Formats: sequence, structure tokens, C-alpha cells
Amino acid sequence: MPRFIKKRSEKVGLPPGTLIHVGEKKTDKITISLMDYDETHFQEKALEAIEESFPFKEEPTVTWINIDGLHEVGVIESIGKHFGLHPLILEDIVHTGQRPKMEDFEDYLFAVLNMLRYDQKDDQVKAEQVSLVVGQNYVLSFQERPGDVFNGVRERLRKGKGRIRKAGSDYLAYTLLDALVDEYFLILETIGEKIEVVEEALLTNSTRETLQNIHDMKREMIFFRKQVWPLRELVNGLSKGESSLIRESTGIYLRDVYDHTIQIIDTIESFRDMLSGMLDIYLSTISNKMNEVMKVLTIMATIFIPLTFLAGIYGMNFKYMPELEWRWGYFMVWGVMVVIVVSLVGYFKKKRWL
Amino acid sequence: MPRFIKKRSEKVGLPPGTLIHVGEKKTDKITISLMDYDETHFQEKALEAIEESFPFKEEPTVTWINIDGLHEVGVIESIGKHFGLHPLILEDIVHTGQRPKMEDFEDYLFAVLNMLRYDQKDDQVKAEQVSLVVGQNYVLSFQERPGDVFNGVRERLRKGKGRIRKAGSDYLAYTLLDALVDEYFLILETIGEKIEVVEEALLTNSTRETLQNIHDMKREMIFFRKQVWPLRELVNGLSKGESSLIRESTGIYLRDVYDHTIQIIDTIESFRDMLSGMLDIYLSTISNKMNEVMKVLTIMATIFIPLTFLAGIYGMNFKYMPELEWRWGYFMVWGVMVVIVVSLVGYFKKKRWL
Amino acid sequence: MPRFIKKRSEKVGLPPGTLIHVGEKKTDKITISLMDYDETHFQEKALEAIEESFPFKEEPTVTWINIDGLHEVGVIESIGKHFGLHPLILEDIVHTGQRPKMEDFEDYLFAVLNMLRYDQKDDQVKAEQVSLVVGQNYVLSFQERPGDVFNGVRERLRKGKGRIRKAGSDYLAYTLLDALVDEYFLILETIGEKIEVVEEALLTNSTRETLQNIHDMKREMIFFRKQVWPLRELVNGLSKGESSLIRESTGIYLRDVYDHTIQIIDTIESFRDMLSGMLDIYLSTISNKMNEVMKVLTIMATIFIPLTFLAGIYGMNFKYMPELEWRWGYFMVWGVMVVIVVSLVGYFKKKRWL
Amino acid sequence: MPRFIKKRSEKVGLPPGTLIHVGEKKTDKITISLMDYDETHFQEKALEAIEESFPFKEEPTVTWINIDGLHEVGVIESIGKHFGLHPLILEDIVHTGQRPKMEDFEDYLFAVLNMLRYDQKDDQVKAEQVSLVVGQNYVLSFQERPGDVFNGVRERLRKGKGRIRKAGSDYLAYTLLDALVDEYFLILETIGEKIEVVEEALLTNSTRETLQNIHDMKREMIFFRKQVWPLRELVNGLSKGESSLIRESTGIYLRDVYDHTIQIIDTIESFRDMLSGMLDIYLSTISNKMNEVMKVLTIMATIFIPLTFLAGIYGMNFKYMPELEWRWGYFMVWGVMVVIVVSLVGYFKKKRWL
Amino acid sequence: MPRFIKKRSEKVGLPPGTLIHVGEKKTDKITISLMDYDETHFQEKALEAIEESFPFKEEPTVTWINIDGLHEVGVIESIGKHFGLHPLILEDIVHTGQRPKMEDFEDYLFAVLNMLRYDQKDDQVKAEQVSLVVGQNYVLSFQERPGDVFNGVRERLRKGKGRIRKAGSDYLAYTLLDALVDEYFLILETIGEKIEVVEEALLTNSTRETLQNIHDMKREMIFFRKQVWPLRELVNGLSKGESSLIRESTGIYLRDVYDHTIQIIDTIESFRDMLSGMLDIYLSTISNKMNEVMKVLTIMATIFIPLTFLAGIYGMNFKYMPELEWRWGYFMVWGVMVVIVVSLVGYFKKKRWL
Repeated sequence: MPRFIKKRSEKVGLPPGTLIHVGEKKTDKITISLMDYDETHFQEKALEAIEESFPFKEEPTVTWINIDGLHEVGVIESIGKHFGLHPLILEDIVHTGQRPKMEDFEDYLFAVLNMLRYDQKDDQVKAEQVSLVVGQNYVLSFQERPGDVFNGVRERLRKGKGRIRKAGSDYLAYTLLDALVDEYFLILETIGEKIEVVEEALLTNSTRETLQNIHDMKREMIFFRKQVWPLRELVNGLSKGESSLIRESTGIYLRDVYDHTIQIIDTIESFRDMLSGMLDIYLSTISNKMNEVMKVLTIMATIFIPLTFLAGIYGMNFKYMPELEWRWGYFMVWGVMVVIVVSLVGYFKKKRWL
Repeated sequence: MPRFIKKRSEKVGLPPGTLIHVGEKKTDKITISLMDYDETHFQEKALEAIEESFPFKEEPTVTWINIDGLHEVGVIESIGKHFGLHPLILEDIVHTGQRPKMEDFEDYLFAVLNMLRYDQKDDQVKAEQVSLVVGQNYVLSFQERPGDVFNGVRERLRKGKGRIRKAGSDYLAYTLLDALVDEYFLILETIGEKIEVVEEALLTNSTRETLQNIHDMKREMIFFRKQVWPLRELVNGLSKGESSLIRESTGIYLRDVYDHTIQIIDTIESFRDMLSGMLDIYLSTISNKMNEVMKVLTIMATIFIPLTFLAGIYGMNFKYMPELEWRWGYFMVWGVMVVIVVSLVGYFKKKRWL
Repeated sequence: MPRFIKKRSEKVGLPPGTLIHVGEKKTDKITISLMDYDETHFQEKALEAIEESFPFKEEPTVTWINIDGLHEVGVIESIGKHFGLHPLILEDIVHTGQRPKMEDFEDYLFAVLNMLRYDQKDDQVKAEQVSLVVGQNYVLSFQERPGDVFNGVRERLRKGKGRIRKAGSDYLAYTLLDALVDEYFLILETIGEKIEVVEEALLTNSTRETLQNIHDMKREMIFFRKQVWPLRELVNGLSKGESSLIRESTGIYLRDVYDHTIQIIDTIESFRDMLSGMLDIYLSTISNKMNEVMKVLTIMATIFIPLTFLAGIYGMNFKYMPELEWRWGYFMVWGVMVVIVVSLVGYFKKKRWL
Repeated sequence: MPRFIKKRSEKVGLPPGTLIHVGEKKTDKITISLMDYDETHFQEKALEAIEESFPFKEEPTVTWINIDGLHEVGVIESIGKHFGLHPLILEDIVHTGQRPKMEDFEDYLFAVLNMLRYDQKDDQVKAEQVSLVVGQNYVLSFQERPGDVFNGVRERLRKGKGRIRKAGSDYLAYTLLDALVDEYFLILETIGEKIEVVEEALLTNSTRETLQNIHDMKREMIFFRKQVWPLRELVNGLSKGESSLIRESTGIYLRDVYDHTIQIIDTIESFRDMLSGMLDIYLSTISNKMNEVMKVLTIMATIFIPLTFLAGIYGMNFKYMPELEWRWGYFMVWGVMVVIVVSLVGYFKKKRWL
Repeated sequence: MPRFIKKRSEKVGLPPGTLIHVGEKKTDKITISLMDYDETHFQEKALEAIEESFPFKEEPTVTWINIDGLHEVGVIESIGKHFGLHPLILEDIVHTGQRPKMEDFEDYLFAVLNMLRYDQKDDQVKAEQVSLVVGQNYVLSFQERPGDVFNGVRERLRKGKGRIRKAGSDYLAYTLLDALVDEYFLILETIGEKIEVVEEALLTNSTRETLQNIHDMKREMIFFRKQVWPLRELVNGLSKGESSLIRESTGIYLRDVYDHTIQIIDTIESFRDMLSGMLDIYLSTISNKMNEVMKVLTIMATIFIPLTFLAGIYGMNFKYMPELEWRWGYFMVWGVMVVIVVSLVGYFKKKRWL
């Protein structure tokens, strides 16, 4: 449930712009790392205090400052002051559980995103809010905890592979977005595999757990969809090139990310349709089982009830019951019973119950 | 049901603009309170008569007049006359059960809203119509009964915390709106917790009450959705800055409220989806239970019916029944019975019914 | 069914503009009434022949001519000729079962509406087509039968209450529209009460009739929705002030009616959602009942089947059955039976079937 | 199924514009008829060869050429050449199963429509593709087989009733369209009556056939909707007056047809909703019946199982069974049985099963 | 499942524009074929190396280069370099599982499509990504494996049938698109026939397999829809003539393809509706069968239970049971039994269970 709605109770009644961290505290210590580069030069640094990063803002090189941990609002406030960020933005950064959105403040772009990562240990998708501030020559990224999907980007920056060191801060922002969206594909792949497993189980041996699995995945899809639709709008807005901070050459890459978000939405919708179909199959499987149980009962009862009745007849103690005296009475009763059984079995065969 | 449609019968046939209070009378006495402030000065007053507030209209300071209780239409009429409000607006104020909407009359903005509050005593969400009139330097608020979600705002006004005393009437209106929307989040939180509880019950021990609970929450969602969609339009209209009464610096705060309404809508839709899923689980649980009941019956009947038949056979009173004379006949019958039981149990085990 | 589609067979193959009354003939005699007024003067008349009304067209006072009964096409034709109405309009007037729509012919506006009235005697909603023609200083209204929802308007005209006598023909048209839409609210109120009653029945003692009631109301909602959606468009078109016949001061009143139509649509959608929920409850109630029936059967059968088997055993007539000779055999059998019953009851208690 | 998709296999791989008749061959001989008229003169002719019609193209009078039968592509090709029609249009004419559409080629308009006719003999709706080409002073109509819904139009042309002989080719095209749409209403009427019959059956005595009927009508609605939605677009396009071939005075008539298509769509949607409701009723009827069957079984079994057990007890052959010796034992057993029956019947009465 | 989502895991973390073949490797050797033509001349060639094709780019004749097999990224890279294609395009070509899309790079158009082919051997629809690059005088097509739906086009090029040799590269691209879309129709035809077969089975003898079949086809429809919707957008974009590479005369042919895609979508939606209806029928068939089974059980049990009870009564061993001594006691019991059977059978007949 916390994935769908965050506790806001503690914030009620406070003036807007008040910095209070809303959400689980997922790390003890804030860690700040900095990467500064252009085509020819590259520098990487782990900062002790946020103030160390301020000189880089004035230099023409591109600077990427990454902050892991949101609970020390002083740090956020100080960086916000130095980079001239609007108080509402700072509030959004520390108040996790935001809907993905993008806002354009001419000097800088602000984007809130949801970073999903599949945790293989817990077999669970873990969500974390990532906020990006993209300025002329800097990118700020705020995460809830250490560990992210950006290691590939860092590697490419270090090794200078591809366009990344030649391009500006907008291209860096694109690369981060791309890494984030790629991770969505990986998670969908995992879910796709789970769907296949459950589908297999559905056909061979469906239990109550199967139902629970289907519903869990359906809920996962609800959560996913809630994330991806606003993401799609966000990327669409960026790729349309309305902001002067996004160079035209980056626009085409953003359109590529946009295509990916649409593909993700398509896949989610297909999965939803499939899961609904699986639910239908599950329910009709229950009905079929009931039918089978009923048939066994009906066949057994229908065959033996008349036989037992017959046996009951000749168990009566009337003084005058001619059949009882007959030499072959007992065997005739057996004969009648065989006839009854044979004709009933024939009847069920005709009805295709046997 | 009164939440979905208000009695209008008493109004039919009257000319438009006739002031008649439609709705439950929720308080005995009208109470009027006034707050007048600017950056340096603050005054709070409980008014005996509405006329005491009229002088404040001319002063440059921002004045907030709050009226609790709508049944004395004379008071509403008098204030409407002094502040130059359109008759249809006065009608909307006293006619509760309006759909949230906003209208721009150049001199002032008019907004009807629904204030929801979770009443912990009755475990019920209570709705109340709140009307706001926002002029150049005044805000009028009309409520159905005393008690509201604006105490935090009042406190900030008194203490002068944040921007509130420095900004104009539009910012005050925003703050009221924000407080109102924040309360929606709290209620959704409460409902979210209830959903979790019911979900738990669903998996362990679902009763007819569980079904009733799911449906009650579904209906709650219908009610909520009916409230929030027009609210979203309303806030969107305000934040787009079409009215000259809304300063640009307030616009960005209104966009924040707009984001909140979208988040609320998202959450409502997610809850609806979840509740539908829970209904499906409930229904398939019933089917599963039926299946289980049927299996017990079928197994018992199928095992004992042939045994009873056999006993019936040897209860017959035929003169000539060779088995009855056999020394070990009785024990042989027991033997046959054991064979029948064992093979039937084996059959059920194979079918996974046991 | 005639509410959903009218017999058109008789009209097929005729040229467009041919006046043939399509629909049930709901009155024997056409009655024509006229009201002529301005701020200072008021005249009311029952006309023998439509021609008596023609002189009023030239006068500056506002004239409202109301015709009850559509089967005498001659009258319609004559009025159409005098007021210069397009043949297709006349066709729409006499051809009942039209979809609500509005058309602007510069000189006059034409609107087809559906007047719904709740007939308490028959516990039924009765629909009737009302056509309005609004000119510069006249309003023509055509109804299928005598009796309507306009008596309040007539009263206000007679007494000169409110704005009505001061305003022009557009305001009169608005008042008629308002009266018509108000009646929709009353009917929704009635349906809302019925829903409550049925809901009560659903929880205490639902029968097949309950299902029928739910479906009847669902169908009512289908019918309602079919009426209100085009009505909403119609009023929206009018209130947008695109026609020069609608004064700006009337526009704001029409927006009020527009808000009402939206509220009606909202209520209809809520009712539909509720009725769907009630259907779900009904269906799961059936399943629950079946479950209960099955449980009773299963418990009875499961307890007595082994007992009867045991009795059957000792009813066998084998020569050598040691138990039969035992002194306490009979009582031991009873003892075994008590043990069986107790353990089965315990089993069912554990399964929560008892 | 052929109504939903036509065999295209034979056309695959051929260049576009290749004339091959796709669809069932519904007539042996192509028949061509011609009507040529203006306000004062009228001429009707059955043509032997299409070439006879060519001189009429040059004359100022309006000419309507109707071709029944599409399999002789030579005729189509020849007429296409003479009237300067685009090859793709000719292809659409002979390739039946097109989606209704309209295309504007400045010199002429091209429309493909679906003519539905209710065949009372087979109790079936028969569909046939009708293509219209509307030029300045001519209308070409292509049908799959003789017999159509245009006889009323022909009659009016012959007798000169209404506007038809005074107006141009656009008005003729409108009249044909109107006749075609009117037929849709008639078919909906027929379906409406069938729905009523099935509904009646549903409440009194629903069988498997009822279900089949509901589904057949649902499918009919799917087919209808597939036809009418594009038709609506088509008529809307025409009535908007974008083509110079449509005179303004005809536009208002086309808007009338447009209203009809919307009414048809409304009716179809209402029918769909009703049919869904009927399906729900049908399914809950099955459940109710099952419930009733189960109740009878349960009541019978529950009453007799303990009685039979009791009889079994006193059928045991124990040496020492005190009750058997009692004078009134037999009658006491009867007494106990009566008590059991009475209390069980009371229990069922309390449960409202009886 | 691989049809819904492709493995992307191997690509994560690589810079955009990196050429890695994603998808199954469906052929061993890349084959390249070339066709070069204008109105008078035609040349066909199988190339050993892609470099042989480069001279053709400069000539005014239209050149069609077709590459089967995507795993040798070197070939793709080399052709991309020579024809000046953007790196992201090359990535899309080798990264199969793209959503159909079109992009306009002024010098050339790029389109990704999905070629579906029905494989009669496996009774399966096989999908394959086809990428098209359309320049001023060349068309490049990239396929995953040899064998395609373009043989008809090749034949027409060779024989010079129709417009194809006279028109430019845009017309060739249209022809390829048309061939591809035509194949969709053929597959829908096949599915339509399968639906008919399953429907037949549904009415005569539905098994669990029937359900599986319905679901398989539903899933097929989900897949189809996912393909055709973006295809429709793509063709719509092309036919609107926004690109300077598409001549106006080709635009009308593209609109024809657009109509086809809409027809395909219509058919898919109709099939979906039908399949849903079939599912409903299937489920109610299960319920009906259960009903029938229950009825047989109930009738048998209800008739024999009282008879067996009666037999049990007279099997009791009470000393004093007057009936046992009667001369006709035994036959009277038989009489009573006949009366019971007759009245129960009558009751069931009345209930229409027999």
C-alpha cells in the first residue's frame, strides 16, 4: 500500500515550501559524488560537504552532482540556494511519492522520476524517487538511497565512450533518463517470465496460489501504469524541444526514449489483457472442477441408489413375500441389478459423462 | 444517498436567484469571524452582525471573512449586496450539493468546493459545501457548519509564518484550497489502511461482511471521484492564470495544488482497480469453498454408498442365499469392503481431492 | 421499447418535409394558449384557432404560444408558414422521438427537448417531446399532450415575480428550459429513493424481483443518459452565446442550467455505478445461499451415511456374526455411532461450517 | 462470418487498380437503368449497353444511372473511362466489403455505402455494397444485385412530388442516402421487437435458445455499429459543406440525415446495453434454477436420511435389543420420526426454503 | 511471450547507437539482392558484398536493395555510412521488436514495420521486423530472414505490369507497404475461419480445449491490435503528404492503404467482441451442464430416498408390527411406492425438469 500513497499526515498545516522529508529513511548518511568533464578532461570526486561543489557551477565544463539520501534537508536547502532553485522544487525533492512530472524554469529544468529496480534477493520491484535538475552546464540528481541504475553511464563517462563526453548537460540528462527507462524493460521482462510460469501452472495444476499470483501481477501492472503514463508525457514534453536547454541534436535521442515509453505502455496493456484472460481461465477451471466432482457423485449415487432400494425391499420382514421363497430369487435379484447398472452406465456414456 | 443527490423538491417553480437554503441545517446559529492583515499588522474579530465587516472592504489590507451556517439567507443577501455578488452566486452558496466549479466575474472569482473531513468518532467521511469569493483584497468563505480544515491557515496568519502575510488575497485563497486538498490525502490514507485490513481479512477469513466492506469502499470511491474530477478542472483553470486576480507568483503554487489533485485522481483509480480485484478474489473464494464442500460430500457419499449397498444385499431374507451359510461369509464381506474403500481412496488421491 | 425507438415505417418513401405525425396520439383535441406580456402589461388567452395568434407577432411585447397536441398537422403547417419556419423543422416537431438538438436559423432558434414527468399514479416516468421556437419577441412551444412542468413559469408570468416580465423572449426560453431540467432532478430524487429501498431489500431478503428492479432501474438510467447527453450539448451551445438571439445577461443563467445538466449526468453515472455494485452483491448473494444449502446437505449426509452403513452391517443375516451374540453389542454400536457423530461435528466446527 | 471479412485471397499480388470482382456474385446479368430529368421533363430508360448513357453526360439535365451487378468489370471500366473516374475508385466499386467512406475528387464525389435490407422470408438482414458517384449533373449508383430501397425515390422522380425534380444532382444523392438510412431505422425497429420477444421469454421460460438469441442480436449490433460509425463520419463530412458540389440548400437536409445517423448510433448503444442486461438476467436465472434444484434435493435428503437411519437401527439383528421387545416400540419409532419431520420442516420454513 | 517483449538485457548500459543485434538469429548467411529499374530498363542482381550496390545510388534509376538477415552488423553499418543514415536508425534496424513507427529525415524516410506471415505448416502466425529506408531514388529493405510477402511486387517489377516501373521510389515503398498490409487481411481471414470452427464446436460439444482456443485467439487479437494501431498512424502520416519524398499521385494510393488499416482494425475489434461473446456462451454452457447433472442426481435421489425409507421401515425387527402379519401387506407397500413415484414424477414434470 505505501507504494500507492505516502503518509502525508505529518505535513498537514505547514506552509508550502517547508522542507520536511516525507517517506521512509532509506540510508543513514548522505553521500555526495561529483563528476566534472568535457571532451578532453574528466574528474571524479566524493564530496564531504555540498559546498565543495559550488565552484564547479561557474566553470564551462559539465558537472554532475549526485546526492544519495534526502533526510538532511539542510544539504538540500543549501544546494537549492546556491543553484537558485524554487522552494516548491526543494519540497518536491524531499517529499517522496511524487507523480513523475517535469517543470521548465527557463534557467533550469526540473524532473521528478521513479527509479524502479528489480531486487532479485527479495523477488520484488523496489521504487525510489529520483529528482533531476538540469541547468546549462550542470545536472543535479537526488536519490533516496545509494545504489542506482546509472553505473553504465558513469562507466561511459569515465572511459569517454560514445558521444557522451562531447555533448552537453542535456545529453547527460537524456542518458540518465534512458538508463532509467531501460531498467523498466528489464523488469517487464522479468514479469513476462513470471506470467509464463503462472500460465503454465494454470493449465496443469492451478491452486489458490495461482489466483493470488495473477492478482499480484495485476496490481503490479496498476502500479507500473501509474508510473509510466506521466513519464510518457514528461519525455514527450522534453522531446518536443520546447525548452531552450535541450539542444536539437539531443531531441532525436529523446524521441527514441519516447518510443520506448510507448512500447512499455503497449506491453503493460498487453500484460493486463493477458492477466484478465488468465483470470477467466482460472475461474472457468474452478467451474469445470466442480462439474467433475458433481459428475462422480451423481454417477455413484444414481447407480447405487436403486440397487440399495432393491436390497431394502427384500430385507423386509413381511410374512407373505412370495419372491423370498423362490429357489432362484436371490440370483434373479442380482440379475436385475446387473441390468440396472448396465443401462445406467449406457445412459451416462450417451451423455458423455463417462 | 443524500451524498449523491440533494432534495430539490422545495425549490421547484421558484424564479432563479431566489435564496432558499437547500440541505440539512447543520448548526443553530450563524457565526461570523474576520481576519484582517498585511505584512505588518494583524487583527482577528468575531462579528455579531455582518455589517461590521463592511468597512474593511475599502481598506487596502487583506480581509478574510468566514461565515459558518447558511440557513439565515438574510445575512447572505446582505453580504451579497455589499460586495456586489450576482444573485445566482448567492443561490449557489445556500443551495448545497453543488458540483465543484469556478466562475470568473472579473471583479471577483467564485468557487464552490466540497470540504471532506474524516470523523474518527463515527468512522465516516463528512462532506460540507464551502464557497469562496475572492476579490482584490478580500476573501469570503461560506461553510455549512462550524469546524473546518483551515485552523493551520489561521495559525500561520496569526504567527505570520511563511509568505502568507506578505502575499495578497489570491495567495490566501490558494492556502485555503491547499488545506482542503491536503485533507483529501489524509482521507485517502485512511481508506488505504482500511483496504489493507479488508484485504487481510479476504485471505484469512472472508465473510459476507467483507463483501459489504468492499462495496462500501467502492461507493466511497465513486463519491470521491465525483468530487475530485471537477476540482481538478477548477484548479487547472485557476493555475492557467486566466484571471487577472491571480498573480503570476501564486500561479506556480496553484500548479502544485493541481499536481496534488492529479495524484489524488491517480490514487482513486488505483484503489478502484484494487477493489475490483478484491471483489474477484472474494467471488472465487466463494466458488472455492463450494468446491470444498462438494468434495467432502462426494467423497463421503462415494465411499459409503457401495458399502451400504453391500450390507443391504446380505440383509435380504431370501430362503436360499448360499453366502449366508458360509463360515467366513461375514468376514469376507468386511474384506471386500476394505478393498472398496482402499481403491476409492486411491482414486481420490490420484484426482488430488484428498 | 417504444421509448427507445419510434415506429417510422409509415414515413418511409415520402419526400423530406412531409408532415406526418409519428408517435402515439396522446390527446383528442389540440389546445392553443397564448400569453403576451412586457414589464407593465400581461394578457392570457385560450385560442380557438391558431390564426388568432398571428397579430401578436408584429407587436414588440413578448408572446408565448403553447400548442398541446401534434396530430393536426394543418395547424402546425399554418403556424410554420406564418412564422417562416423551415419545412424540416415542422417535420421534426410532429415526428416525435427526436434526439434533443438545437438549430440556429439566425431569425429564430429551434430546439427539440424531451419533457420527463414522474407519474405517481402509475409509478412511471412519462416522456413527451417538447419543441421550442424562439424568435426575437416570441416563443412557440409544441407539446404532445396537455399538462406540463411549466405551471410555475406561468404563475410567475401572471404575478410578475422576479426578472421574467422585464426580460425578453430568450429569458422566457431559459425559464422553460430550467423548469424542464429541474423536473429531471425530481425524477432522479425519486429513483434515488427507489435505489435505497432496493438496496435495503438486497441486504435483508433479496428475491428474483430485486434483480428485476435493479435491471429496470439500470434501463431507466440508459434511457436517461440517452436524453441528457444531447441536452447538455444543446445547453452548452446556447450558453456559449453564439446566437445573437441570446442576450449576454441571459447567458449566465444558461450556464447555470448547463451546470445542472452536468450534475444530472454525474448523478446518472453514480447511480449506474451503484446499480452495477448492487448487481454484483445480488449475484454473490445467490452464490452464498447455494453454499449454505450445500453445507446443510453435506453435513446431514456426511453424518448419517456412516451411521446408516453401520446399522446396515448388523442388519445382515449371516449365520456366523459374533457381534450379534454379544451381550452389549447393541449398545456398543450406539457408542461407536456417538463417537462418529462427535468427531464429524468437531471436524465441521473446525472448518467453520457450523 | 463473410459479413465481417471478405475473401481477398484471390487479389493478393496484383497491382493496385486491377479490376477484379471480390464478393459473392449475386446476379447473373447486369441491368442498367437511366433516369434523366429537370423541372419540366422526365425520361426513364432501361439500357442494353452502357454506351447509350454517355450522351446524357453532356446535357444540363440531371441524369441518374443505376447499375445492378458488379461482376462484368468491362462495363465498370468503360463507364469509369467515360466519366473520368480514378482507377482506385473503380477497384473499390467492384471490390465489395469496403468500409463506408467518402472521397472528394473536386469534379465528383465518391461514396461507398452499405445498403441493409431486412428479408422477411429468411428473417435475416441482407447487406449489399452501394457505390455512389456524384458529379455536377449526374449520379452513378452501383449495386451488387437488383432490388433496392430506392423505389420511393424513383416514384417521386416519376411523379415530380416535392423538391426533387427542381433540385440538382446533390439533392438526388441526398435522397438516396436518406432512403438508405431510413431503412436502417426499419431494421432497428424489427430488432427492437425481437428484443422484446426474447425479453418476454427470459422472464417466463428461458432456454438455451434464449441465450443463443441474445448473442445473435449482440452480434447483429456489432455488425451494425461497424456500419454506422463510418457512415456518420461520411454524412458529417458531406453536411459540413466542404465540397463545392453540395449546394448550401442541400446542406441542411444532409444535417437532417446526420441527426438520423446519430439517433441510430444512440439506439444501437441502448440496445447493446439492454442485451448485456438480458445476458446478466439469463445467467442469474441459471444460478437461481440451480439453487432451486439443490434445495429440493437438500430438503428431501435431509428429511429422509435420519428416518432411514432409524429404520436401519431397528433392522439390526442383535440378540439383545430391548426396544424390539417393547409392546409399543414400533409405534414409538413412528412417533420419533414424526417429531423429526416436523422439526426439520420448521427449520426449513424458518430458512425460507419452503 | 517473446512476441510481446524482446530480451533487452544484453544491451543495458551500452551507449545509444551501439549496433547489437537483438532478437533471434533466424538465418545463417546474409543475402543481399538488388533491383534497378526505370520505365525502359530493368536489372536484377544478387550481391556478394554490400559495396557492389553503392554505385547505383548516384544513378537516376530507382534502386531497391533488400537485405535478409540482421546479425552481421558490419554490413548494416557500412550501408548506413554510405547512405548517410542516422546511428539511431541503424540501431532500430538491428534491434528487433520495435513498435511500428515512421520518421522523416528530409533526405530519406525511415519506417519500421512488422511483417506477419501465416505458416500453414505450424498453423502459426510468424512475425518478422521489416525496416524500410526510402530515399529520392532508392529503397532499402531490411528483413530478419529470407522469404517474404514481396514476391508479387518483384514479379510486377520484372514484367513491368501496371504503373510500378513508371513511378518513383515512393510508389515502390507504397507497393511494399500494400503487400504487407494485404497479408494481414489473409491472416485475419484464416483467423475468421478458425473462429467459425470454434463457434461450431461451442454449440455442439464444447470441451476445455474450446476455452483454450478462444483464449489463444483473444491473445492473437491483442498481438494484432498492438501491431496495427501504430501501423495506422504510420500510414496516416505518410498519406497526409507531409514529406516531400512522397509525390501527390502516390498519396491517393497511400490513403487506400490507410483505409485498409482501418478496415483491419474494425475487423479486429469485431473479432474481439465475438470472442468475448463466445466466452460468455462457454461459461453459461458449463453452468447449464452442471444444472443438468444436478437435476439427474436430484431426480434419482428424490424418488428413491422415500422408497428406501419405506423398505427400511418394514425391515425392522420389532416383535409387534401389525402390518407384517397382513396377508397383502407386501403388495400394499408396493402400491404405496408406485403412488409415491407417480406423484414425484408428476411434480418434476410440472417443474419442467423432465
